[in-house]
Amino acid sequence: MTTLLSPEELEARLRDVGTRRYHSLHPFHKLLHNGQLTFGQVQAWALNRYYYQAMIPVKDSAILARMEEPELRRVWRQRIVDHDGDHEGEGGIARWLVLTDSLGLDRHTVTSLRGLLPATKFAVDAYVHFVREKTLLEAIASSLTEMFSPGIIGERVAGMLKNYDFVSKDTLAYFDKRLTQAPRDADFALDYVKQHARTPEQQEQAIRALEFKCDVLWVQLDALYFAYVDPKMAYPGAFVPKEG
Amino acid sequence: MTTLLSPEELEARLRDVGTRRYHSLHPFHKLLHNGQLTFGQVQAWALNRYYYQAMIPVKDSAILARMEEPELRRVWRQRIVDHDGDHEGEGGIARWLVLTDSLGLDRHTVTSLRGLLPATKFAVDAYVHFVREKTLLEAIASSLTEMFSPGIIGERVAGMLKNYDFVSKDTLAYFDKRLTQAPRDADFALDYVKQHARTPEQQEQAIRALEFKCDVLWVQLDALYFAYVDPKMAYPGAFVPKEG
Repeated sequence: MTTLLSPEELEARLRDVGTRRYHSLHPFHKLLHNGQLTFGQVQAWALNRYYYQAMIPVKDSAILARMEEPELRRVWRQRIVDHDGDHEGEGGIARWLVLTDSLGLDRHTVTSLRGLLPATKFAVDAYVHFVREKTLLEAIASSLTEMFSPGIIGERVAGMLKNYDFVSKDTLAYFDKRLTQAPRDADFALDYVKQHARTPEQQEQAIRALEFKCDVLWVQLDALYFAYVDPKMAYPGAFVPKEG
Repeated sequence: MTTLLSPEELEARLRDVGTRRYHSLHPFHKLLHNGQLTFGQVQAWALNRYYYQAMIPVKDSAILARMEEPELRRVWRQRIVDHDGDHEGEGGIARWLVLTDSLGLDRHTVTSLRGLLPATKFAVDAYVHFVREKTLLEAIASSLTEMFSPGIIGERVAGMLKNYDFVSKDTLAYFDKRLTQAPRDADFALDYVKQHARTPEQQEQAIRALEFKCDVLWVQLDALYFAYVDPKMAYPGAFVPKEG
């Protein structure tokens, strides 16, 4: 890219990344919301995604630690509050554990990360390292997948409630909260990126940061598909559903 | 693990990790050395593995930077020399590029990392971060997959020469060198780990570090299998072989 985009053109390019690469396009997502997964495959999804959920406030703390302006930090710290809550049992991570509980997964099994697919760990850790090592602009731009999340959450919640008798509205409470939190967070981050990506290089970096984040999400679904939907070989040490 | 192992028992446990988890067990390796891959699939393997090769001296430099004793650094630095060579066109990375050349891959395509699978990048970067962030003992222990590499190299070279007419002894020169370098490196690292893992916790860490490294290699073959042998969907942005 050699020409400077207007803020509106940059937004359009960022939204286009989602159209091409967001994990709503992934076959595993389609199986999940169409009710085509077994109970054990849904367990594997929830167990693996727990690690992503658990690391989100670590990722946001790393971004917070790089913000030199109190007004930025005041906004960003809310993300950490949302995921960690004010008390034990509150917040997004706790709500995710309600989901894994309802799927019959032992909490210690989930939180110990035993049985996690290595590709899940590598992808999530890549995200944490990215926000530590790249520019603050890129770190913030990488969060912009939240622009696309209301759509996938809508599909996922409606599809899972309709298609799986082991899923209820209560167990999916995590996603309800995200329907209001994600757009608020995404609006702020998008405004920041549109204001601070002031050269063609910075705009290109912001677009690539969002592509990178799409890769982080996509690789997690690839790994689930390969390990649990169409396995060639059991992954050494990974979670094995108990169904016969 | 609660009991202290003798150095010989620790070595046996480390060797057992390889028996259970080394990537010689992976279906992609078997397809590769049995001649069951297409030219394009072999290209994808070589292109993706380039990134692993290119980051090995970065990984070893990170370890070198953590060694406080000149006698350790004097030994370890040889690994960097082996991969980087003394002049342009020499060393392990250059020999890997001879292989990708011979497979008809444009050098710039390979070295630009365009078309690399994100899972390859995440796995290799996880290795670099691991040796920076864990203890020096764990960093050194993670290199111990070299104990197992002469076996896989033997299988791979014999199988590829026999089964693919687009492969010659010259193009596989990378592996010839590794047959002498890897055992020398592995002997040193194994002695270090046997001497310095002096508590049950350190011994457990060393074993887990080697398991982690097996994951790094395994995930790379998983990603190749899922993207090129049995794809559900083209990976957005990844290398596409040209064959019809």
